[in-house]
Amino acid sequence: MLKQLFRWIFGKSLENDRISEEKYNVFWGMPILASDAISSVAYAVEEMLWVLIPFVGMASFLWMPRIAIAIIALLLILTFSYRHVVEAYPNGGGAYVVAKENLGPAYSLIAGASLSVGYVLTVAVSICAGTTALISAVPALLPYRVPIAVLFVILLVIGNVRGVRESAHIFSIPTYAFILAVISLVIVGLVRYATGNTLPVPLAPMQEISFGTHPVTLFILLAAFSSGCSALTGVEAISNAVPNFRDPAPHNAKLTYLLLAAAIVVCFGGVASLAKIYHATPNPELTVMAQISLAVFGKGIMFYIIQVTTTIILAMAANTAFAGFPTLLSIIAQDGYAPRQMALRGHRLNYTNGITFLALLAILLIIVFEADTHLLIALYAIGVFVAFTLSQTGMLVHWFRLRNEGWQYKALVNGLGALTTLGAVIIVGVTKFTSGAWIVIVVVPLIVMLMYKIKQHYLLVAQQLDIPNDTLSLIDFNNPHRHHVIIPIDSINGMVIKALLYARSMTNDVEAFHVEPYEGEADKLKRKWAMLNTEIPLIIRESPYRDVVGQLTEYIGSEEHASRPGDLITVLLPQFFVSKWYQALLHNNTSLFIANAMLNKHNVVVSILPFYLAAYNVKKYQKVDDIKDSQEE
Amino acid sequence: MLKQLFRWIFGKSLENDRISEEKYNVFWGMPILASDAISSVAYAVEEMLWVLIPFVGMASFLWMPRIAIAIIALLLILTFSYRHVVEAYPNGGGAYVVAKENLGPAYSLIAGASLSVGYVLTVAVSICAGTTALISAVPALLPYRVPIAVLFVILLVIGNVRGVRESAHIFSIPTYAFILAVISLVIVGLVRYATGNTLPVPLAPMQEISFGTHPVTLFILLAAFSSGCSALTGVEAISNAVPNFRDPAPHNAKLTYLLLAAAIVVCFGGVASLAKIYHATPNPELTVMAQISLAVFGKGIMFYIIQVTTTIILAMAANTAFAGFPTLLSIIAQDGYAPRQMALRGHRLNYTNGITFLALLAILLIIVFEADTHLLIALYAIGVFVAFTLSQTGMLVHWFRLRNEGWQYKALVNGLGALTTLGAVIIVGVTKFTSGAWIVIVVVPLIVMLMYKIKQHYLLVAQQLDIPNDTLSLIDFNNPHRHHVIIPIDSINGMVIKALLYARSMTNDVEAFHVEPYEGEADKLKRKWAMLNTEIPLIIRESPYRDVVGQLTEYIGSEEHASRPGDLITVLLPQFFVSKWYQALLHNNTSLFIANAMLNKHNVVVSILPFYLAAYNVKKYQKVDDIKDSQEE
Repeated sequence: MLKQLFRWIFGKSLENDRISEEKYNVFWGMPILASDAISSVAYAVEEMLWVLIPFVGMASFLWMPRIAIAIIALLLILTFSYRHVVEAYPNGGGAYVVAKENLGPAYSLIAGASLSVGYVLTVAVSICAGTTALISAVPALLPYRVPIAVLFVILLVIGNVRGVRESAHIFSIPTYAFILAVISLVIVGLVRYATGNTLPVPLAPMQEISFGTHPVTLFILLAAFSSGCSALTGVEAISNAVPNFRDPAPHNAKLTYLLLAAAIVVCFGGVASLAKIYHATPNPELTVMAQISLAVFGKGIMFYIIQVTTTIILAMAANTAFAGFPTLLSIIAQDGYAPRQMALRGHRLNYTNGITFLALLAILLIIVFEADTHLLIALYAIGVFVAFTLSQTGMLVHWFRLRNEGWQYKALVNGLGALTTLGAVIIVGVTKFTSGAWIVIVVVPLIVMLMYKIKQHYLLVAQQLDIPNDTLSLIDFNNPHRHHVIIPIDSINGMVIKALLYARSMTNDVEAFHVEPYEGEADKLKRKWAMLNTEIPLIIRESPYRDVVGQLTEYIGSEEHASRPGDLITVLLPQFFVSKWYQALLHNNTSLFIANAMLNKHNVVVSILPFYLAAYNVKKYQKVDDIKDSQEE
Repeated sequence: MLKQLFRWIFGKSLENDRISEEKYNVFWGMPILASDAISSVAYAVEEMLWVLIPFVGMASFLWMPRIAIAIIALLLILTFSYRHVVEAYPNGGGAYVVAKENLGPAYSLIAGASLSVGYVLTVAVSICAGTTALISAVPALLPYRVPIAVLFVILLVIGNVRGVRESAHIFSIPTYAFILAVISLVIVGLVRYATGNTLPVPLAPMQEISFGTHPVTLFILLAAFSSGCSALTGVEAISNAVPNFRDPAPHNAKLTYLLLAAAIVVCFGGVASLAKIYHATPNPELTVMAQISLAVFGKGIMFYIIQVTTTIILAMAANTAFAGFPTLLSIIAQDGYAPRQMALRGHRLNYTNGITFLALLAILLIIVFEADTHLLIALYAIGVFVAFTLSQTGMLVHWFRLRNEGWQYKALVNGLGALTTLGAVIIVGVTKFTSGAWIVIVVVPLIVMLMYKIKQHYLLVAQQLDIPNDTLSLIDFNNPHRHHVIIPIDSINGMVIKALLYARSMTNDVEAFHVEPYEGEADKLKRKWAMLNTEIPLIIRESPYRDVVGQLTEYIGSEEHASRPGDLITVLLPQFFVSKWYQALLHNNTSLFIANAMLNKHNVVVSILPFYLAAYNVKKYQKVDDIKDSQEE
């Protein structure tokens, strides 16, 4: 029942061979991998205004578009830099792999940790922004924003556990719808403005903002730039996921990068222009996008289409991280720096553990920051830009090493990328330090330390388990191993006899072991034991605490028990299993309890011999009296 | 740490020998066993008035004392009846045992179920009434009555798990304090009344009651009588707990019955008189006891003493059930009609499972009925009186069977007890049916059915496990049992070698079993295997779902595996254990997962061979590079 529900939600198991089928072409791959960057349109402009307007008031609408142009320039540099990454690293891995191969493991771990933080924040920020977009359309939902955001994350987990290609199909159409909706918005908005045919802008929320009269300082402009940089997060996703593309994967990935850049330039540039034209002013209940839509279209069908597609593309942006993070984590896990489980594919051939882990972290952030996009943005860009910088620096080293045809041009592009992204790291780190970036600056080194610790653990475990190849042939499999078997028993019954026979045919050194809670309790057992035609001794111990595990441990350790130090002792536990789960409530399951406790002793092999009770089906209660009461004899 | 906290709260383990020390004399035993009946003073009078006043108004103060006299008469009959029970059944068990021996198992189960329901309600009613008494003193606590009541139950659990005698000591002093406080109240109240020196009664709450002008009907009087009968619940507790008394236990128990009767007559009779004199009128925020205290003493220190001792004695009343219910349940469990775990004594020598079970049920009732005494009272008396009736009827049969000296007198007393309690059952059942008694009338038969089902299960299990004594000597322990051992492996390492050696010395029929997720994954393993100097075959299966359990099951069932039907196959699982719990997060623990799954196969013995990794202690992260990376070879 539960298993069927599970299958229904998460899809049927896929066979290994189907890995290659689960890949996407440019048309389906672009929306799933690029939606993060494209969706930033929904909040990046707004976040710049959140920084500017309280300080410099109307001057914001002069400076914001200029900052937007700087960001678009940075985007273009990144796009061309990353196209080189795709070319050089067709197996994906992005910043982590590039840094590992060119800069060494320490840098790769910094890149991995930074990217991981970035992915978690991508989910949190995008989901929160998407929830705000939904609330702009349906203000009654405002009190429920945290549960709505959490629900979105859960839906993404389900979608992603179902599988890669299906994700692409489910999620691609609304992304295209969003791009089309924004392009219509930009065109209609610009045409209305050009023809002077504008609707009145809803100014009500703007009045609530106290307009700043602060002079325009470099710090404020850089802070706005830092917020705007959130638009560029997610650009690396395509380079991480090259192997997810159909062949020729690098070609498709590079093409996708061009499409991505074009989409961002049009949408981000367009929205920034409209925000300037219509003097959109951020407030917590109505997003800048919503204000522009109202100004351009009025509160009609187009307004709702824009809000709904915005919500969905932001969910898709979060989905980018669900595609990228588990892949990254699996690569790190294969290198031994993350728990190995992260490298295991689930029943739908994706990294279920990584997906779940990402979702849990994102939900934690959403709850802690009460689903407030604005608070989360301060943490966002820094991790991503650290990874960008390491990736581009790594590429620079790569080209200098390789020096193949045209390397100078490529080195120049990647060098420019490294420089600009390093600049962005410094700007974001400084201007956002107190409002949240410090958290990331503290967390990333902690993650790196943890990764080192994990690697160390795996190496030391391997060292203890390792047997050198040249000694393999020296192991003598014919040297007899002396077996000792102890069977804890309560009474003599079919199950115990089965266990005794099993043990007896393994070795002559078998003992039955009984703990009596008070002296004389075992008398009946002793009498029955004497009837058995066997030399197996029955050891009886009295326990003041009725403590089988303690008595057994003591006995095994005692002189009386003829094992030599280092000998393996087998504790054989006959355990009966009932046919219905609720029947288990009627039994103590002492055996399973002993099994758990005895596994803590280093030299004890725990064997469980199951005895399955047949299902019975008696309907009349009167039958109780007919059943021979063998317990009472 | 957790274990120490546990010990600190629940006390150190007691040895079996100390059972006899954990018994009480009359002085300590009376308060712990009789507090239920005595504490009823706190609510029984009030509950009668809750029935009468809305219907018959001032006429209540004429009729209530007469009903109280009837209840006292019933109490005296019960006291003398139960003294005979104690005499005839010095081993305790009360209604359940008496009905079982004299009326047969069906009646004993009805008695057991009724008593169990009664015990749960004793806890719920007493705790709720105690909470109301507390609230009368500190009205600010009114909104927290449910959590306060639940907290009281939890404290009782702790006290009871600590042990029998300590319970008596902790709980006895306030019970005596309550009796003294009530006696002072009665004396001062009567003296003030006799001398005409009364304080003005606080009439404010009375005005809120709409005074009834309904004629005084028999039904109303009987309904009031039913509510008043709650005063008699708990009378059987002493007879159930005879073995908890010091020797001579029956003598001490009988003496306790006399003390109990005297205390109830004085306190209940006194409070009923005062309620009549001062025209106390129930309201939800100030109990009748509190109103009388205010009238007699004013809002001084004595008022608070009465409220606090009332609260505490009501908690003690609940404690009666914590002493009685687990004992009853353990007797039923020994007969096989309740889960066996209920008959196991915990580390402090009491029935921890029964205590916990009672607490959970009581907490459930408290939450469902929102800690409202008045609502719970309707459910209360019926179960207890059914048990009374069965017990007294059983005694009647007992004396008719025994016909020893003076049996006629005893039969008369118990016959009278049976008749009057049967009358009370009918009265309560009819007058309280719609207000809650129906729940009990439905639940008791369900419990009886469940008890039959449990007995049936144990009998059928025993039947399957049973081996007749005369066949014991025929079992041949020298008939060799053919062993088959399969060892699932991932790679060749020290742990796997240890397992192979262990298995190889058990039988020649050993196989290593590996599942590769894709073809060729096992090539390296095969090469290493070939280096081993052994004939143990390495079985390799490819699994599209990476499903070791499924492949193993299939293999064991296949022709290829040379086991005969009915053969036991041992799946030997080498499992390594790390030294720190958090290190376990870094490993898959596939073995334990396989162990669980393979136990579901009826013919598979699951053996776990532990391999403990030594703790390591490396401080510098740089060391990672120094450790030979044996995985990468």
